[in-house]
Amino acid sequence: MELPSKLIEAAVDQMSSLPGVGRKTALRLVLNMLGRSEEQVEAFSEAFLHMKKGIHACTQCHNLTEAEVCSICLDPARQGNLVCIVEDIRDLLALEATGQYRGKYHVLGGVISPMDGIGPHDLNIASLMQRLELLNTTPEKDKVEVIFALPATMEGETTAFYVFRKLAPLTVEVTAIARGLAVGEDLQHADEATLVQSLRQRLPYTN
Amino acid sequence: MELPSKLIEAAVDQMSSLPGVGRKTALRLVLNMLGRSEEQVEAFSEAFLHMKKGIHACTQCHNLTEAEVCSICLDPARQGNLVCIVEDIRDLLALEATGQYRGKYHVLGGVISPMDGIGPHDLNIASLMQRLELLNTTPEKDKVEVIFALPATMEGETTAFYVFRKLAPLTVEVTAIARGLAVGEDLQHADEATLVQSLRQRLPYTN
Repeated sequence: MELPSKLIEAAVDQMSSLPGVGRKTALRLVLNMLGRSEEQVEAFSEAFLHMKKGIHACTQCHNLTEAEVCSICLDPARQGNLVCIVEDIRDLLALEATGQYRGKYHVLGGVISPMDGIGPHDLNIASLMQRLELLNTTPEKDKVEVIFALPATMEGETTAFYVFRKLAPLTVEVTAIARGLAVGEDLQHADEATLVQSLRQRLPYTN
Repeated sequence: MELPSKLIEAAVDQMSSLPGVGRKTALRLVLNMLGRSEEQVEAFSEAFLHMKKGIHACTQCHNLTEAEVCSICLDPARQGNLVCIVEDIRDLLALEATGQYRGKYHVLGGVISPMDGIGPHDLNIASLMQRLELLNTTPEKDKVEVIFALPATMEGETTAFYVFRKLAPLTVEVTAIARGLAVGEDLQHADEATLVQSLRQRLPYTN
């Protein structure tokens, strides 16, 4: 579809550069934008510029932060000997939203996926090892626990296994979040692999 | 979900102000944006600002244009006595993409929809009447044709009927684009109303 102006063309190009936004949707969004006041369009544009300029990866855990180290890493009330490994920021936010986890995180920034050309060196694994090696020199090293909270996919499993092997020389307990029936789900709609996992990971029944 | 920074919060707010973009999707898009270089984010932001500053509605037909009057209205090769009435710019673009229409357009900027609080006075009907009244003073007034290319919905029909009544005092032929079986569609999957229209609007068979 030929657009009536290079300016609109450029805006549609930019909008459709967003993942999952095709050119038709992009045009719809761009026309919506044209219907706004100049102040509103400025506010829209500036929000991304300000964010890009003000937000960095936490130098410790790669969470997003306006400072050098993120508020979770700095929080003295959170257990430093508990490190939850997640694929990306959204997973961290999902766990934080539960309000139940009081340890720290390490954001890998992806999972190993040869199909997409993502190898271990593209992930934040070196910084994870540094953190854990440092923890291993502390007197509480026996209590260090690494929790894998990675996606239940082939890539997630591969990544967990790769990191697990790297952790072998260290004195750390390694756990992974449970796989099983989702809360509210019934057995007949669960897939087989999930049911097998839920059986294998069965627990003593408590009330 | 609580976000780790006000800057990200603001970006997510803006992204989710786009129609059809929820907060979860907005967060995904905003994190994608954070993964880009500062130059890329600038290019993204500036595209919308430049567009907003440079694009106006054509004073004649309400198409989008960088000048005062759009290239379609200015094109001497297009028939000025053929005015196709469309709901919005995207409909105009869809018709232009066929490359088969050589007349001009009038973009109403919506359809009459009491449910959404949109009445005739919110649409570009006054300017349409002005254009047509002017055409009615020319020697070729007998050849003026108004083509309704409005959506096949209750609102589209209402709008067409409203404009049709307004056109009564003028010497103009009024037509509407055909309703019928879509190309590539089979009868058993077409809805009843469409089949009825396709029967009513049947044409002499030619090869």
